[in-house]
Order: sequence, then structure tokens, then C-alpha cells
Amino acid sequence: MIGDIINDVREKKPLVHNITNYVTANDCANIVLASGGSPIMADDPCEVEEITAICNSLVINMGTLSEKRLSAMILSGIKANKMGIPVVLDPVGIGASKFRRDSLLKLLSKVKFTAIRGNLSEMKMMALGINEGRGVDTSISYETKPECLCDILEFSKRLSVKTGAVIAVTGPVDIVTDGIRSCYINNGTPYMGKITGAGCMLTSIIGTFLGCNSDYPFESVTAAIGAMGLCGEKAFDKVKKRNEGTGSFKTYLIDSMSLLDKKSLEEGIHIESM
Amino acid sequence: MIGDIINDVREKKPLVHNITNYVTANDCANIVLASGGSPIMADDPCEVEEITAICNSLVINMGTLSEKRLSAMILSGIKANKMGIPVVLDPVGIGASKFRRDSLLKLLSKVKFTAIRGNLSEMKMMALGINEGRGVDTSISYETKPECLCDILEFSKRLSVKTGAVIAVTGPVDIVTDGIRSCYINNGTPYMGKITGAGCMLTSIIGTFLGCNSDYPFESVTAAIGAMGLCGEKAFDKVKKRNEGTGSFKTYLIDSMSLLDKKSLEEGIHIESM
Amino acid sequence: MIGDIINDVREKKPLVHNITNYVTANDCANIVLASGGSPIMADDPCEVEEITAICNSLVINMGTLSEKRLSAMILSGIKANKMGIPVVLDPVGIGASKFRRDSLLKLLSKVKFTAIRGNLSEMKMMALGINEGRGVDTSISYETKPECLCDILEFSKRLSVKTGAVIAVTGPVDIVTDGIRSCYINNGTPYMGKITGAGCMLTSIIGTFLGCNSDYPFESVTAAIGAMGLCGEKAFDKVKKRNEGTGSFKTYLIDSMSLLDKKSLEEGIHIESM
Repeated sequence: MIGDIINDVREKKPLVHNITNYVTANDCANIVLASGGSPIMADDPCEVEEITAICNSLVINMGTLSEKRLSAMILSGIKANKMGIPVVLDPVGIGASKFRRDSLLKLLSKVKFTAIRGNLSEMKMMALGINEGRGVDTSISYETKPECLCDILEFSKRLSVKTGAVIAVTGPVDIVTDGIRSCYINNGTPYMGKITGAGCMLTSIIGTFLGCNSDYPFESVTAAIGAMGLCGEKAFDKVKKRNEGTGSFKTYLIDSMSLLDKKSLEEGIHIESM
Repeated sequence: MIGDIINDVREKKPLVHNITNYVTANDCANIVLASGGSPIMADDPCEVEEITAICNSLVINMGTLSEKRLSAMILSGIKANKMGIPVVLDPVGIGASKFRRDSLLKLLSKVKFTAIRGNLSEMKMMALGINEGRGVDTSISYETKPECLCDILEFSKRLSVKTGAVIAVTGPVDIVTDGIRSCYINNGTPYMGKITGAGCMLTSIIGTFLGCNSDYPFESVTAAIGAMGLCGEKAFDKVKKRNEGTGSFKTYLIDSMSLLDKKSLEEGIHIESM
Repeated sequence: MIGDIINDVREKKPLVHNITNYVTANDCANIVLASGGSPIMADDPCEVEEITAICNSLVINMGTLSEKRLSAMILSGIKANKMGIPVVLDPVGIGASKFRRDSLLKLLSKVKFTAIRGNLSEMKMMALGINEGRGVDTSISYETKPECLCDILEFSKRLSVKTGAVIAVTGPVDIVTDGIRSCYINNGTPYMGKITGAGCMLTSIIGTFLGCNSDYPFESVTAAIGAMGLCGEKAFDKVKKRNEGTGSFKTYLIDSMSLLDKKSLEEGIHIESM
């Protein structure tokens, strides 16, 4: 199943509408292309509904948020819901300002999301109202002790039931749940926190995978996270072997996604079902 | 002639005003620099005319369009026309929304373009009003059968006569025409469709080449397209040899442009005059 | 002292609020991360004060300026001044338009800057009102004759006294002064002018270094400029050895920053105190 998804993406080339921040938009477009999808970036309220209408999925990323971009997100989200195509949310840095938290509430009240992905601080904010994040690009590291992961899983399940979305909390160990089924994913490298946009890119990949597998949201989100983590590992191996740094790591991450095939995805992904 | 243009660019270092989308602005600036030009990116209506006034050419790229950016394009376009400097248009994704089509009509009614470059679906939309594109970043592949190329050449010639611009339809085979003279360019690699911004970068290179060769628009557009295609080939060769992917490809594409010289351009460019 | 700063940055991981242009925002975020800091990019007036409030320093970059971004800069700048955190200014292309010059005056009247960094044409404009720049990304090369450097140092000292900021004029030889102490830095490579964003990245690095060393602004600015120049040299050496170009150079520049350590910084930095 997991391995088939990457083949599906490459065959069907889903068109993915990304309403995203200007900092990582280029990286997001390139990783969508690398995975086999086709990205459209458009964020003006006067055209976003039409753009969404020709797409297979919609990605809403709250980085560098503005009132205007928020309007575009709501318009596109409602359109996507009407069309029945998947919508993914990345609540970037929602701990950082009241504007982002208010915007999140508006989005959640008007748009039904297929999947929501964030780091631990973002998802804690969202699920529990606990604001511990330092800001936008900060990932809180957490101990991978079973009891701790259990706590995260618990609030993720409740958030999934409440929102109807597949919830993904990504970090040293990634957690995915649709409220009933859950899994941990043990892929990736801490190096992903040393470049900007690893989270944004992952969310765009989730949107891409969902764009041609909307009937299997749990599996699609899991496959996307595993694929991204695995590509991170491959990129990191190459960087270490060559004594290179974070600039090369980003290049190799996109390289690895463009070279990923069914076999290496199935062999490399480490999923622990709950 | 063709080979001299790259030397000219490096000697004269034309200043190129780019009003462009935020997704590929960084790539456009870097490829302009790699070719020998100097890029200025500015899109606020309250300063764009002054910016255009100090430049050698203007590039208008319709990606991530907004009302405000459209105003800037019109102001700068009119200024460039008054000054007599070349203006290039990239009608990015004009099939994707009514807003883009209306904006295109406004631009065409107020600004005289020296060159217009798009992929087949964009240029069909523009020349024939046929909307077959899936959206912004999608390139429609087309058969390189002589009869089919003839059809494209035919509507391109008519569009050239109508607009007064050199028309370039880029794809597996590139077509350039000024209504009288025409040519096919057989350079490039399908890998260029696997990164975002290959088209945007090419349009910025056209603007750069025109910026110091405004008396020879047909030759400048042809040289720019050939140069970009050739750099794509060089980048692809390196990627294949090293078993790398699309991330490295983009890096090598910019590398190749920065290393391109007259001799390798003249030897590597495959132009078939009509 | 200089070498300790890089260790400090990596230990304290300062959070750096960047209000910057969309062309090089991704590069700026990545170089801040590579140096050990943590970047936040946010530019909407409705949230910027809250973002600044959780940060250790603020970087204001005037590229792709708009009225809205200017409002954000002023709000954040005033907030940062109230909090007592360092604020850095990059007067990108202020010679290019009246809007930028007026905006600069507004910024200088409302915000106290800890450091201001620009190229020679930008700083001449700022210090002497002489507009000789061709525009945004253009660096004016200047002779490194002692008398000429003296002139630049002279107006930089006066600008430092006038603004209370550490002044840095970067180019073939970099000049840093706090009005009393001054130095020349002999690091870097002309290749840095062949990519977009070298200056923007440097300003973000200055903000990062100041973010955990606000008591030593002169030393922090000097260390940041030396570190960036040294990383440029390392990147250029690698590019030359491998016969690569400007695309690889940017990647290696970020690589080098992520690999930079105290020892190589102390050994490689060439400072001449005045």
C-alpha cells in the first residue's frame, strides 16, 4: 500500500494548489515536483477559487500570514470542501501571535481539513491551548519515552475526533492518527531542523500524496511522512560522507525525493502501528 | 552573432527590472547574475517607474499575480515603452483564472512588448483563446511532428504580427518568430519541467539578453532560449553521471549559465531556421 | 573574543526576527540556521510586534519594500527599542527610488539601530546624500588605496556618531566603525557579488550574532562580516577546484557557515584595527 502511493503520484501527477508563505514557496514547489506532483502557487483572493477548482488537492500553510492570504485560504478551503478534494493544514507558528491563533480558529470553523500537520509545539497549542513555542521555525525536541509519546498520541486522537482530520505531529518520532488507527514513524534526521522549510515541504508532500489517494488519508499521510523522513536520511548520509553542510543537505533532500521509488520506500520506512 | 550576445551581456552588465512572482524570484535573480546581467526585483507601484527608469530592460512575469502587482506592471511597462527599452512578458498560467486573462488583456492594451514567451498551453490561450492548460506550472508535451510544429508556428506568426512582439513558444522544440523570420531550437531536456521556475528563469534571461541587444530582438530571444536549453543539457548530463536528482539539477543549471562562453554556446546551440 | 561569538550563537540559539524581501528570504533563513540561530520571518503589521517580543534581535531589510512592510518595520523597530534588543538595518537599494529614501528617513527618525550595513553606494547615499548607485543589487567596486578607504572610514565614523549605530560598509575591503573603534576586514571573494542575497544574508548573520552578544556590538558586527567573508572564501575555493559555478557557490556558502567553528574563524579572519 505505502509503496504503491509513490507510484500512483508519479502516474497521476496530481495538481496541488499551495497557499503558502513566500519564504519556502520555492522549496515546496520543487519537492512537489520531485515527488511526481505538479504545484500551483496562487494566493490572491480574486483567483484562488478558480485555481482550486482545477486542482486535486489544496495545501494551506500559515507562514508569513496576512489578512489577504487568510481570505484566500478560506475561499479556497470552502471551494475544496464543496468539490470534495483533500485539504491539508500546516498551522505554522500559531503560538507566535494572536493573529495566527484567531486565523486558525476562523479556518477551522469554515473549512473541513483532511489532514493537519505540525510540530509538537504547534499541535499542543492547537489541541491543548498550551503555548510553549518560541516561534515559527522552532521545533521542540521531546524525549522519545513511551509514556511521553503516549500523551502526544492521546491529545492527537482527541484532536482528530474533534476536527475529523488525520493528525500528524512530526518530530524525532512522528505520530499519525485518524482517531482510530495510529502509528509512529521512525524516520528522519535532526538535520531537517537545520534548514528552513522541512515542515512546509512535508505538508506539501502530504497534499500531493492525498491528491491522488484521497480515499486513504491515513495511509497517504503516513507514506508522505515516511517518504520525507527517508529522503532526509539519504540526504544526511551523503552530506556526512562528503563532509558537507546544510546547503547541500537541502539540495540532496530534493534529489532524494526525485529518485525515490516504491522499493526503497517500502524497505526504508519504519512504521510502528499502534 | 548568437555567440557574441553572451559576451555583450557580460561586458555591458545590463540592469534588468523583474516584476515577478515570489516563488521563483530568487532563481530568476541568480540566473540573471549567472548570465552576466544585474537584476532588480521591485514591485511596489510607488517606486516601480523610478526603478524601470534606471534599467536596460523590463521583465513582466504573471505568476502569483495580484491587483497591486498588476498596477506595478502597467506603470513600469508604460515607462519602459516611453524610454524605448525592451519589455518581455511571461503570461504564466493565464489559462488558470479569469483574473489572469483580464490582466493579460489590460497589459496588452497598455504596454507594447518586445518579446512574449510561454509554454504551448499559455501561448495557445493567448493566440487562439483555447484553454487547455491544467494550470500554472504545467507544460503540455506535444509531438514534434513537423505538421504539428507548423500549426504552432502559424499561430505564433499571427500573434507576432498582432502584438508586434517576438513570440517564443517553448517546449520539447522551441519556436521563435518575429512574424517574418522564424526558427526552431532543439536544445534542452525534459528535466527542466521537473523543477519550478525553468520558464520564469528563461524569460528573465531573455530580458537580460535584450537589455544589451535591443536592436536585435529576434536574435536575442533565440540566443537566450538556446543558451538556457544548452545549460539544461549540461546540467542534466552531470546529474545523470552522478546519479543525482532535481535539486542538484537546478544548482547545475545556474552553474552552467555562469560558466557559459561564446564558444560552447555557438557549438552547442541547435537552431533550424525556417 | 571573535571566535567565542560563533560558539555563543550555537549555544544560545538566538531567535532572529527578519522583516525582509521575498527574493532572498529563504537564503536569509537558511544562513541564520547554518550559523546556529533560529529565524522567524513575519511582516504583517497585525502580528509583528508580538513576534519581535519573543525574539533576541530584529533585522530590517529594505528590499522589495512596500508601504505595508514599512509599517511593520516601524512597529517592530519601536518594540525592539523598548525591549532593548538589537536592531539591524540593511538599506537595500536606497538610491533606487524616492520611496526608499523617504522610508529610510522615517525608519531613522523612529527607530534606533544597533548596526547598519550596506554596500558603498548605499552607505554613501545614506551618509553623504550622494546617489551614484545603479540600483538594488549593484555593488560599486572601489580601489583599496589607503586614502580612499580613509574617506569611507571618515564618513562612516560621522554616520556612526550621528545614528549611534555600528556602521559597516562592505565591499572588497569591509569597514566597521562604532565612531571610536574602527577596523578593516580583508575576507571574502568577488564571487559573492555573483549571487543574489550575499548582502542580505550577511545582514541577517549580523542580527544573529548581535542576538546573543548585544553588549559587544562592534565585535559582533566584525565577527559576522569576517565569518561571512571567510565562508565565501571556502565556498569559492571549492567551486574553483571543481570547476563549478554560482549555483554551487551559494550552496557551499551555506555549507561553510554550518561547518564554521571557533578555530577556523579565528585563524581565517583578517582584521586590521585602526
